[in-house]
Amino acid sequence: MTEPQVRLDLQRRQRLGMVEAIFGEHKTSEQIAACLSRLEAAGELALVTRVDQAKAAAVADLLSNVQFHAQARCLTLGDPAILLPALGEVVVLSGGTSDLPIAAEAALALRWHGIQSELLLDVGVAGLQRLLDQLARLQRAKVLIACAGMEGSLPTVLTGLVPQPVIGVPVSVGYGVSAGGRTALEGMLASCAPGLVVVNIDNGYGAAMAALRILKAAITGEAAVNQ
Amino acid sequence: MTEPQVRLDLQRRQRLGMVEAIFGEHKTSEQIAACLSRLEAAGELALVTRVDQAKAAAVADLLSNVQFHAQARCLTLGDPAILLPALGEVVVLSGGTSDLPIAAEAALALRWHGIQSELLLDVGVAGLQRLLDQLARLQRAKVLIACAGMEGSLPTVLTGLVPQPVIGVPVSVGYGVSAGGRTALEGMLASCAPGLVVVNIDNGYGAAMAALRILKAAITGEAAVNQ
Amino acid sequence: MTEPQVRLDLQRRQRLGMVEAIFGEHKTSEQIAACLSRLEAAGELALVTRVDQAKAAAVADLLSNVQFHAQARCLTLGDPAILLPALGEVVVLSGGTSDLPIAAEAALALRWHGIQSELLLDVGVAGLQRLLDQLARLQRAKVLIACAGMEGSLPTVLTGLVPQPVIGVPVSVGYGVSAGGRTALEGMLASCAPGLVVVNIDNGYGAAMAALRILKAAITGEAAVNQ
Amino acid sequence: MTEPQVRLDLQRRQRLGMVEAIFGEHKTSEQIAACLSRLEAAGELALVTRVDQAKAAAVADLLSNVQFHAQARCLTLGDPAILLPALGEVVVLSGGTSDLPIAAEAALALRWHGIQSELLLDVGVAGLQRLLDQLARLQRAKVLIACAGMEGSLPTVLTGLVPQPVIGVPVSVGYGVSAGGRTALEGMLASCAPGLVVVNIDNGYGAAMAALRILKAAITGEAAVNQ
Amino acid sequence: MTEPQVRLDLQRRQRLGMVEAIFGEHKTSEQIAACLSRLEAAGELALVTRVDQAKAAAVADLLSNVQFHAQARCLTLGDPAILLPALGEVVVLSGGTSDLPIAAEAALALRWHGIQSELLLDVGVAGLQRLLDQLARLQRAKVLIACAGMEGSLPTVLTGLVPQPVIGVPVSVGYGVSAGGRTALEGMLASCAPGLVVVNIDNGYGAAMAALRILKAAITGEAAVNQ
Amino acid sequence: MTEPQVRLDLQRRQRLGMVEAIFGEHKTSEQIAACLSRLEAAGELALVTRVDQAKAAAVADLLSNVQFHAQARCLTLGDPAILLPALGEVVVLSGGTSDLPIAAEAALALRWHGIQSELLLDVGVAGLQRLLDQLARLQRAKVLIACAGMEGSLPTVLTGLVPQPVIGVPVSVGYGVSAGGRTALEGMLASCAPGLVVVNIDNGYGAAMAALRILKAAITGEAAVNQ
Amino acid sequence: MTEPQVRLDLQRRQRLGMVEAIFGEHKTSEQIAACLSRLEAAGELALVTRVDQAKAAAVADLLSNVQFHAQARCLTLGDPAILLPALGEVVVLSGGTSDLPIAAEAALALRWHGIQSELLLDVGVAGLQRLLDQLARLQRAKVLIACAGMEGSLPTVLTGLVPQPVIGVPVSVGYGVSAGGRTALEGMLASCAPGLVVVNIDNGYGAAMAALRILKAAITGEAAVNQ
Amino acid sequence: MTEPQVRLDLQRRQRLGMVEAIFGEHKTSEQIAACLSRLEAAGELALVTRVDQAKAAAVADLLSNVQFHAQARCLTLGDPAILLPALGEVVVLSGGTSDLPIAAEAALALRWHGIQSELLLDVGVAGLQRLLDQLARLQRAKVLIACAGMEGSLPTVLTGLVPQPVIGVPVSVGYGVSAGGRTALEGMLASCAPGLVVVNIDNGYGAAMAALRILKAAITGEAAVNQ
Ligand SMILES: Nc1ncnc2c1ncn2[C@@H]1O[C@H](COP(=O)(O)O)[C@@H](O)[C@H]1O
Ligand SMILES: Nc1ncnc2c1ncn2[C@@H]1O[C@H](COP(=O)(O)O)[C@@H](O)[C@H]1O
Ligand SMILES: Nc1ncnc2c1ncn2[C@@H]1O[C@H](COP(=O)(O)O)[C@@H](O)[C@H]1O
Ligand SMILES: Nc1ncnc2c1ncn2[C@@H]1O[C@H](COP(=O)(O)O)[C@@H](O)[C@H]1O
Ligand SMILES: [Mg+2]
Ligand SMILES: [Mg+2]
Ligand SMILES: [Mg+2]
Ligand SMILES: [Mg+2]
Ligand SMILES: [Mg+2]
Ligand SMILES: [Mg+2]
Ligand SMILES: [Mg+2]
Ligand SMILES: [Mg+2]
Repeated sequence: MTEPQVRLDLQRRQRLGMVEAIFGEHKTSEQIAACLSRLEAAGELALVTRVDQAKAAAVADLLSNVQFHAQARCLTLGDPAILLPALGEVVVLSGGTSDLPIAAEAALALRWHGIQSELLLDVGVAGLQRLLDQLARLQRAKVLIACAGMEGSLPTVLTGLVPQPVIGVPVSVGYGVSAGGRTALEGMLASCAPGLVVVNIDNGYGAAMAALRILKAAITGEAAVNQ
Repeated sequence: MTEPQVRLDLQRRQRLGMVEAIFGEHKTSEQIAACLSRLEAAGELALVTRVDQAKAAAVADLLSNVQFHAQARCLTLGDPAILLPALGEVVVLSGGTSDLPIAAEAALALRWHGIQSELLLDVGVAGLQRLLDQLARLQRAKVLIACAGMEGSLPTVLTGLVPQPVIGVPVSVGYGVSAGGRTALEGMLASCAPGLVVVNIDNGYGAAMAALRILKAAITGEAAVNQ
Repeated sequence: MTEPQVRLDLQRRQRLGMVEAIFGEHKTSEQIAACLSRLEAAGELALVTRVDQAKAAAVADLLSNVQFHAQARCLTLGDPAILLPALGEVVVLSGGTSDLPIAAEAALALRWHGIQSELLLDVGVAGLQRLLDQLARLQRAKVLIACAGMEGSLPTVLTGLVPQPVIGVPVSVGYGVSAGGRTALEGMLASCAPGLVVVNIDNGYGAAMAALRILKAAITGEAAVNQ
Repeated sequence: MTEPQVRLDLQRRQRLGMVEAIFGEHKTSEQIAACLSRLEAAGELALVTRVDQAKAAAVADLLSNVQFHAQARCLTLGDPAILLPALGEVVVLSGGTSDLPIAAEAALALRWHGIQSELLLDVGVAGLQRLLDQLARLQRAKVLIACAGMEGSLPTVLTGLVPQPVIGVPVSVGYGVSAGGRTALEGMLASCAPGLVVVNIDNGYGAAMAALRILKAAITGEAAVNQ
Repeated sequence: MTEPQVRLDLQRRQRLGMVEAIFGEHKTSEQIAACLSRLEAAGELALVTRVDQAKAAAVADLLSNVQFHAQARCLTLGDPAILLPALGEVVVLSGGTSDLPIAAEAALALRWHGIQSELLLDVGVAGLQRLLDQLARLQRAKVLIACAGMEGSLPTVLTGLVPQPVIGVPVSVGYGVSAGGRTALEGMLASCAPGLVVVNIDNGYGAAMAALRILKAAITGEAAVNQ
Repeated sequence: MTEPQVRLDLQRRQRLGMVEAIFGEHKTSEQIAACLSRLEAAGELALVTRVDQAKAAAVADLLSNVQFHAQARCLTLGDPAILLPALGEVVVLSGGTSDLPIAAEAALALRWHGIQSELLLDVGVAGLQRLLDQLARLQRAKVLIACAGMEGSLPTVLTGLVPQPVIGVPVSVGYGVSAGGRTALEGMLASCAPGLVVVNIDNGYGAAMAALRILKAAITGEAAVNQ
Repeated sequence: MTEPQVRLDLQRRQRLGMVEAIFGEHKTSEQIAACLSRLEAAGELALVTRVDQAKAAAVADLLSNVQFHAQARCLTLGDPAILLPALGEVVVLSGGTSDLPIAAEAALALRWHGIQSELLLDVGVAGLQRLLDQLARLQRAKVLIACAGMEGSLPTVLTGLVPQPVIGVPVSVGYGVSAGGRTALEGMLASCAPGLVVVNIDNGYGAAMAALRILKAAITGEAAVNQ
Repeated sequence: MTEPQVRLDLQRRQRLGMVEAIFGEHKTSEQIAACLSRLEAAGELALVTRVDQAKAAAVADLLSNVQFHAQARCLTLGDPAILLPALGEVVVLSGGTSDLPIAAEAALALRWHGIQSELLLDVGVAGLQRLLDQLARLQRAKVLIACAGMEGSLPTVLTGLVPQPVIGVPVSVGYGVSAGGRTALEGMLASCAPGLVVVNIDNGYGAAMAALRILKAAITGEAAVNQ
């Protein structure tokens, strides 16, 4: 068995206008550090998702230019992109405070691409007034990311109230039938509110990249990619 | 193989205060007519659920004292029980108009036990104002039965708004992940609203019997059964 | 990424007549303590469910007015509500002794709302006489909560025997096909006994809130909420 | 593509003491008739399961020595085996009358191997007394076959009451979560009653063959096969 | 049982900038005609999805101002909105020609909101060159809707190639593990391509409404709704 | 919350001819010891299943008359019943050596009821000759218990070879689609071999109790129970 | 909505050495005829799978050069490729005669690529001797395709007996847990026999294409494609 | 309970041309060492799969002639077979670097049978160019093994590009809907690319054995086995 050959996607920024993201959950700290060094050498930023405290520390022992974000459970390489306020605002909502890690992952991924966002937690529909109270503020955002576990009805109710793009993020918070986030996911997919789109369970990163694509779509194609 | 022996549950009214209900879906019209004749001979009322037009007509050819309820897809034997307005009101809501057969089954089963109910359709959460507009009226009911298909979030939102017992009935209206009613069911079970209880998909009859048990629990035990 | 904003549901007592309940499983001790302090400052009681010994101790280090209930795996803030015996009795049954934590969670949640209950364990249907021996006693209760794991047939048999409201709580006790409680849940939903209602797997708290709604429904609406 | 070659299992009677059984559901009437002719030529009896009225008639047009059993939805070839009362009695029970086709399939398969059985329908646990009333009679059987749909708790309750072998047959009668028979199957597998064994959903034939194996096990090995 | 009361969502256009859509699959032609008359009376456009030829004809017998779109299996009420070319182009792609009904539903729903789209079928990844050949053209669109059945990998590959918003629509085309569209759905959700968003299986309408939200997000909030 | 009341099934031996079995997995060592003391006081034997080394040691610290069986992961109370060789032999087979704990649980449960059995491991069908070599020996047994994980085809092949009762025990040995034992379970239920019966995944205890029922059925009813 | 544009994969023969195959199940006869005409114009052969008698006739009305294969439920365009006996033999086996349509689809697809195969039906493991009797013949084949429904253990047993490539094809023949073919599929995937590979349920075509790839791999790369 | 008897498959090499492989995951180090000693005594090589570092060390303490392969998580007994370059090359690809353990297991199993392979990691379709860049090299291999987690589309895209046998190995890398590898597995089975074959999730060993069967099929039957 010869030494394995690894091909990083170094053209992602050119092609998609996105920094390389590394899925950290099933990699060793050595594998992560090796990827990051190659990206650093190529002058790239990077985001490593789904990393716990211990693995982050082990990577930091091997590499200097990295930073751990405990709430978001992510490692970053390099400094965040310059803020691009002209692209518009994103609000990240969640049904409960247990959804924080996922909401924070979304916010961090946005920030690393130059987008500032606001986090609004615990506005779930069991106490509906909390959401209705924020309507004016929500109507000012360009894109909404709505995270919810358990039965996941927040994105449905929200999508029925506002005309903007809403990205639902099912969260693996719950127990019994809702353990693992399937019920929230399927509730969002089955939603009777028109135009709600959905990403994988706990995929705050993916929701952020979808929001980024939408924000950039407001500007003409070619231009957007090169920002 | 000797002739099979069949044992009907003729003591149900004494034990539970309920008329016998026959699950019609997998029975032939001959089997249904045979059950109903024996119940009629015993001086009992009866309700046959999940019967289509054709099977109902075939039963009516064999037996005179039966009535078909097309919306509810049910057959009844005998006259409805005398109205018992003192037990209080039930409101049956639904998220869409496609849920009508299930809501109607619940209302019919209640009526055959002496309970009058009101039907309020198409107040789903995609147009939330339709529900909020009815709040005062809903707060006057003693028990609420909330039917919903697709993502099934109506009972969750309702249970967060009012203090009464709410019985969620998932409905097999939908397609893709919501086909068959599983998503609605699991959304209701996973609900973040405290105290929502649930019955099987499309089980309008069961929701009615649960409501009946609750209405009677307000009166002391023994008495309730004999009504 | 700005500091997240959290909205507690401080009007729940006014709206639903229930104390705030916090789902403790996916929260850190810091998050729980922060919620409880805000509720305490607002003069509210609170119940935190699904908390283990270690997390409970960490919260107790941060906050004085809390109490851990080991069997029920819950934390409480403040003193239980004054007993309201006029609302009637609840009996909490279970099929085996392994169901104790869930039965205890239900009993504790009831107690924190002023309802005293009785626990009757290990009356599963594999030894049916144990249940039949208790019938007279069960018939005196206003509401029955029946917890069961494995195949979960206790609530079905019970609902066929008594006329009162029965709330089935599937329990995640079992292995093979019954691991996780799905089989018990679906058995209860599919039950051939009329009027059995069901809550999520292991949701003792939800069953208690449903029982509370039923007990209060016996009293006229407005009044019940303000008790 | 050359003509396919088909190998029938003509030694089954020698090896297992069972007549050949053909699974009729996915075969054309031509395929069934072809199999039966070859078995007839070899001097064998045969049973064809899961055949509807129309297919049965089409086979009967092609072959004379066959008989259709409408309740059991089976075709038979040849005359039933001579009765072997010394092997002992089998009772086939069912929770409802909708389970009749499956119970009848079991009884027919037994009869074609020389075993007489009794059918006892509609003794489901929603009206428990109906079962308890039959206990003395059930205790006289050598083997019990208990068919049940919906939540399928009849075999569990029965197995807790009597010491004999009980074979549970889940039936695809139900709707919502119980549609298709999965809930009944898993309830039986998860059963807290010790020693209940289970066969596939709707597999009345398989339950009969298991009962036959048990009845013959009472006699010494070699002998049993040759009966 | 009193006459049911139905509440249509007549404010949807004001709130969301969308015409009312009726889910036609589980409704009778009478129910559909009744809804459409009320919408017509209110001066609204409408779209009825998932309607077959026969049901469409029955509705057309009851109401004059409707039109059936056979490929898209939809009924429309009124004339399409005026074209709004300034909002930008949408391209609807599909992996095979069997996906046509879903792609056509998306295109029709867009057209009824003033958006012209282009359909590009059978560019699935089994013959990758067909997709790569169209890259320049795809890069000119503002939003891409990618429909795919079977393993559903077209949206994944596409999202890795272009920077715009891509909405994946899983299609219930396939057999074995892919029957019903679950495999395509989960493949899209699990996608390793960053920022792909997904709607329910066969939900061409929902994808169109999401695209509409995105196109309008390019213009400032308030304004967009009133278009 | 009053002290919970626990009802043990002390009549099981009279009713079923079986010693009490306690499901140990979800109980604390204190709960197990409490049950065993009450059974000991009542002069009963007992078997505790699914107990690990540590929990067993903790029980042994609280109670003297118990014994741990490491391979079978069971605790026993009291001495095994006197051997009853007249009831006939049981052979317990398994597909691999990883199935040992389940096969050993079955053998131990049999032994505690007076039945001696033989264990024959690693005769899986990937090396079919290993099974065919044992045929003569297998044909001498009265009942066969066949344990298998992965695809679980051993019981199917065996049931096609011998005429005796075969009880299939799916084992949770495997990974990917076979992790948890579902594939083995469903393979056994779907088996094309006539008369194979099945118990829950890993339920060696249940298979033993079924074998016991069969062995006793050879003797007349009443008598068998009192042995 | 402009006219949809369709891109056929006309380079498949160059790239993969395979004729174009059209998945007929979800296409109208008009769509199929349109695809075939374009392929005919390009001088290509084609195979249309999963077509019933009626649809086949409708296509034949529109196009002359097609042929229907009833057993295999396929349409073909053009004449089969010249036989290439040098590539070696394939044997297609099946567990029962109900598997014939799938086995025939595999044989037809092979034939259309120049490969002759033999069909050997009803050698399932419930009567193991039927398979063992054919061992010598099976050992002469270059590739084996083994089709099986129900529990699907034929490919497992076969793979343990012979050293050649075995391709398992799960078949949707069965009922209860085996309805739809999932159990057969997972049993083959979980197989303890080393090196068994699997295709989708009922995918006789795919198994044939895999066999073709294997037969051609014996010859050097480039050459194989151009045959 | 007598001492269990264990039957190893010592004829596997004669029958299949493969060394014995032991599934290590559910075995103790004592069980593994016992199997290996018997194989060593019989002069056999062996491979133990799915072993972690700790278990491997414990086995090495009991037995000298073993070697641990950390990346592949396997133990081997004896020296690898002599290289057989004439059989042709295998390339093992993977979509990400997280798939390394499975790719390494395949490579090791091949090496232990005399086959050298090449590993090519992180050529997933999110950055398609990485795969297209390697086409020439891939076209030189005789068999391709393609490992992928998440949505698993690499084998589909690859099979559409090259004419050789491709064996897809779904990998349990992912989260949400892709956790555990089901989504990757079903995506590969549902693949629209003709002739892709699949093995169980994470079954690198099985893919290697399938490749070995294919490589040997190029040589005539008898001969191949004895190599
Ligand atoms: N948390 C995440 N969720 C979804 N996709 C991710 C996540 N983190 C990284 N990715 C994507 O997964 C791809 C494969 O990851 P890797 O295995 O690191 O090469 C990356 O290129 C990212 O686009
Ligand atoms: N094909 C469709 N897919 C998803 N949502 C739809 C579809 N057709 C209609 N809807 C939405 O479903 C809601 C409920 O439908 P209705 O039952 O007609 O009130 C409608 O208001 C639409 O927003
Ligand atoms: N491993 C086991 N598998 C299946 N049933 C068991 C097992 N162990 C004990 N049981 C049964 O489960 C019932 C309930 O257990 P318990 O929770 O201890 O009351 C007991 O009465 C036994 O009949
Ligand atoms: N990782 C693996 N995946 C699939 N099969 C395996 C694996 N490792 C070993 N096997 C096979 O599983 C069979 C049963 O394993 P054992 O339980 O060790 O007897 C062995 O004979 C091997 O053919
Ligand atoms: Mg909260
Ligand atoms: Mg509506
Ligand atoms: Mg007990
Ligand atoms: Mg009945
Ligand atoms: Mg095509
Ligand atoms: Mg072995
Ligand atoms: Mg046959
Ligand atoms: Mg990568």
